[in-house]
Amino acid sequence: MKGLWFTERQNPGLEISCLTKKTLHWEKTDYQELAVIDTETFGRMLLLDGVIQTTIEDEFVYHEMISMVALNTHPNPEKVLVIGGGDGGTIREIAKHPKVKEAVLVEIDGQVVETAKKYLPEISVGLDNPKVRVIIDDGIKHVQDNENTYDVIIVDSTDPVGPAVGLFSGEFYRQIHKALTPDGIFVAQTESPFFNKDLIKGIQKDLADIFAINKLILANVPTYPGGLWTFSLGSKKYDPEKVERESIAELDTKYYSRDVHFSALVLPPFVKELMP
Amino acid sequence: MKGLWFTERQNPGLEISCLTKKTLHWEKTDYQELAVIDTETFGRMLLLDGVIQTTIEDEFVYHEMISMVALNTHPNPEKVLVIGGGDGGTIREIAKHPKVKEAVLVEIDGQVVETAKKYLPEISVGLDNPKVRVIIDDGIKHVQDNENTYDVIIVDSTDPVGPAVGLFSGEFYRQIHKALTPDGIFVAQTESPFFNKDLIKGIQKDLADIFAINKLILANVPTYPGGLWTFSLGSKKYDPEKVERESIAELDTKYYSRDVHFSALVLPPFVKELMP
Repeated sequence: MKGLWFTERQNPGLEISCLTKKTLHWEKTDYQELAVIDTETFGRMLLLDGVIQTTIEDEFVYHEMISMVALNTHPNPEKVLVIGGGDGGTIREIAKHPKVKEAVLVEIDGQVVETAKKYLPEISVGLDNPKVRVIIDDGIKHVQDNENTYDVIIVDSTDPVGPAVGLFSGEFYRQIHKALTPDGIFVAQTESPFFNKDLIKGIQKDLADIFAINKLILANVPTYPGGLWTFSLGSKKYDPEKVERESIAELDTKYYSRDVHFSALVLPPFVKELMP
Repeated sequence: MKGLWFTERQNPGLEISCLTKKTLHWEKTDYQELAVIDTETFGRMLLLDGVIQTTIEDEFVYHEMISMVALNTHPNPEKVLVIGGGDGGTIREIAKHPKVKEAVLVEIDGQVVETAKKYLPEISVGLDNPKVRVIIDDGIKHVQDNENTYDVIIVDSTDPVGPAVGLFSGEFYRQIHKALTPDGIFVAQTESPFFNKDLIKGIQKDLADIFAINKLILANVPTYPGGLWTFSLGSKKYDPEKVERESIAELDTKYYSRDVHFSALVLPPFVKELMP
């Protein structure tokens, strides 16, 4: 088919290409190349350094699954921190939860927030929720400066290259552990079980060393390499597999549900192998 | 990256491209264009009419999930039929199951079988199993000619275009119902819940009309559009969700397990909507 195609190199031997209708925004920020394009298949799409971050069509999967499992595992997630996630999708889901009183978003690149507000209103709507406070700063610094503060901390980052590398280190996870309350829960997006096995192994080993409980959450994000994606969870006290089904808030979600809460924690043998 | 890239148009606005090392085979058969290429990311890959059918790296997901849920739902799956699946991967999984006595493969295109034997031995190995009988014929005709014969029938077909269209019709499902024993189970690959919603809705409605029980099985196949894939199941008597966990055969599988048997039947709300 004719037309302008956006192509992402997902790994050295794999590319995904999307037919585009329009380039809505492009800029070089202080941190990364930021773009929003409109595509035939997935609608408007946020790109950072040429990598698909989220799209109008499939964003619900990622944003629900990075937040809802932890929020429904903690009995009282009043204060929640999101590091990264400047598009607002994750904080939108968090703000939905009736038990959340304050949701803080710390995004290093203010241009991501501004651009999402302008071109991705369905996703950035959460940023205007009265429960939400947006801070443009370095998430690592914020975590260091706020000990014993948050019930849930979610790291909604880009891939572990460039600005995000520090967000995948054991040292950072130790700081997260300190920033959590004594029964706090941590979740981060941790890439593909098909293409990033060593990364996931290392992260889960770190979490097993630092937290009482470490789990892997699976969900399918069509625009990510291979589709199958992982979120790593570290918990000081509460086990997401031992949640009382009836205690899970029934919210307006399209991927997450009371049943999916548990099924997303079931690992096929080839994924289970990655666990310590 | 330089090199020769194979590109599949997965839908009008979406393409996947794989860096190739070598084209091992290419021919125009009586039914379709048949090729085997060696790729950097997924190893050797079987293509029919330019569409990825299976690859060495990820074939285990599809072949285990199209067969194991049904085989472990039926208490005594002695006689099993596979329509299509000429690569041998599905029959390889079926032959693994201790309760299976005879597995019949009916593939319309003998060249698929011959080519898989030559270039995809890890997948086609099942074709040489003593339990397996290979028939090169029209699967629809075979089903019409064999009433009340099979405990499990699996339709391992290409997409619903060209030669496979008839394999997605309610009329064919009625013939399958007749070819099954009185407590038989039917499974077919039924495309993507992101990109083929109407197809899946129609199939599930047909199965609900014809069978006592209809279910959707989910699995993640990285080389298929969007990753998330469905298998539709119709059963005369046995409900895959009511299987006794301990009765599930523990075989050498990489995606399927006793726990995955049940988690694969849990549908996110946006997929549940497709069910009648």
